[in-house]
Amino acid sequence: MNKKIPEATAKRLPLYYRYLNNLLYANKLRVSSAELAESIQVDAATIRRDFAYFGPMGRRGYGYDVRKLITFFEKILDQDTLTSVALIGVGNLGHALLNFNFHKNSNVRISAAFDINPELIGSVQSNVPVYAMANLQEQLKDQRIEIAIITVPAAIAQAVTDKLVDAGIKGIMNFTTVRLSAPDDVRIQNIDLTNELQTLIYAVNHE
Amino acid sequence: MNKKIPEATAKRLPLYYRYLNNLLYANKLRVSSAELAESIQVDAATIRRDFAYFGPMGRRGYGYDVRKLITFFEKILDQDTLTSVALIGVGNLGHALLNFNFHKNSNVRISAAFDINPELIGSVQSNVPVYAMANLQEQLKDQRIEIAIITVPAAIAQAVTDKLVDAGIKGIMNFTTVRLSAPDDVRIQNIDLTNELQTLIYAVNHE
Repeated sequence: MNKKIPEATAKRLPLYYRYLNNLLYANKLRVSSAELAESIQVDAATIRRDFAYFGPMGRRGYGYDVRKLITFFEKILDQDTLTSVALIGVGNLGHALLNFNFHKNSNVRISAAFDINPELIGSVQSNVPVYAMANLQEQLKDQRIEIAIITVPAAIAQAVTDKLVDAGIKGIMNFTTVRLSAPDDVRIQNIDLTNELQTLIYAVNHE
Repeated sequence: MNKKIPEATAKRLPLYYRYLNNLLYANKLRVSSAELAESIQVDAATIRRDFAYFGPMGRRGYGYDVRKLITFFEKILDQDTLTSVALIGVGNLGHALLNFNFHKNSNVRISAAFDINPELIGSVQSNVPVYAMANLQEQLKDQRIEIAIITVPAAIAQAVTDKLVDAGIKGIMNFTTVRLSAPDDVRIQNIDLTNELQTLIYAVNHE
């Protein structure tokens, strides 16, 4: 599939995939865009437009074939290949992410964690080994990890990013408040929880 | 200020506010849109357009007065009033959020947590008291809490939401994978970490 999919559509793919699996689990083999719209709260026209990017997927009056959609999304999301991810910074949030079940209903697993705390280095936390930062490059290359999650203190976030880029990382999920600099071919996804919460409060107070 | 601000602009306000405070902390009292653009990675034209919603804030060739902007954003973001937030679900992610320093550089504090675990109820976790779910309505009303963060298992997320709505909650930050139903006047902000990570992986694999 070489057609360029809009980013907003790409962002909804995992959501579609997960809900389709829920439907299959409930033995529901056909679904209309209206039903999907109701359960995932994306409007039906958007869903139809999204699905249309992938070619003819449904029939009018019949709806979509759930298994066919799942097979298709599996391929497109590489659900059949497990993606290993590194976690940099095993503090409170890092620990929570290690425990967070990314793997359930997804193809992602944190397979290596890194920290500078001597008490953590060499230990296994929630089934994930913790390595020294000094071994970052070696481990990422050995394990062919291209995606990293950063939950380090803001003061060292850029330095850690530079090391990750040197080690060949191609995608960074950034939980710090720092806006990171990286080469254009490294994608950075910012999850700024304080910002999200403030935006919510602002919306509640001003709407 | 009654002028309607676009949501994308509103979302950037906390970011602006935080970076302006960093500038002030570094004794930098003037800033150009180009400099701001560089450090927060929002393009300068967008910044100027955003600021223009709030009236004349800068002078050509002089840049923006950092203190003036901060005072202004403080007012607009209600930074001078502390917003109390409830946390529902003190599991791994909940614990991490209790430890997460929302308060630093922000006007938000988790002031009450709720769980069904008898070992947690009545305890104080990271300086926040944990109450029984049975006391939800009473505590939220007593503490005048209108914003809640949900980190409960998916299976009970909607039931918890219904209780929150009954208790007068106006904004929900939802960390579960469930798309919650709530009345129109209740705002829901979804933080779907699995989805974010899958989107990042998809982008890295397909760009």
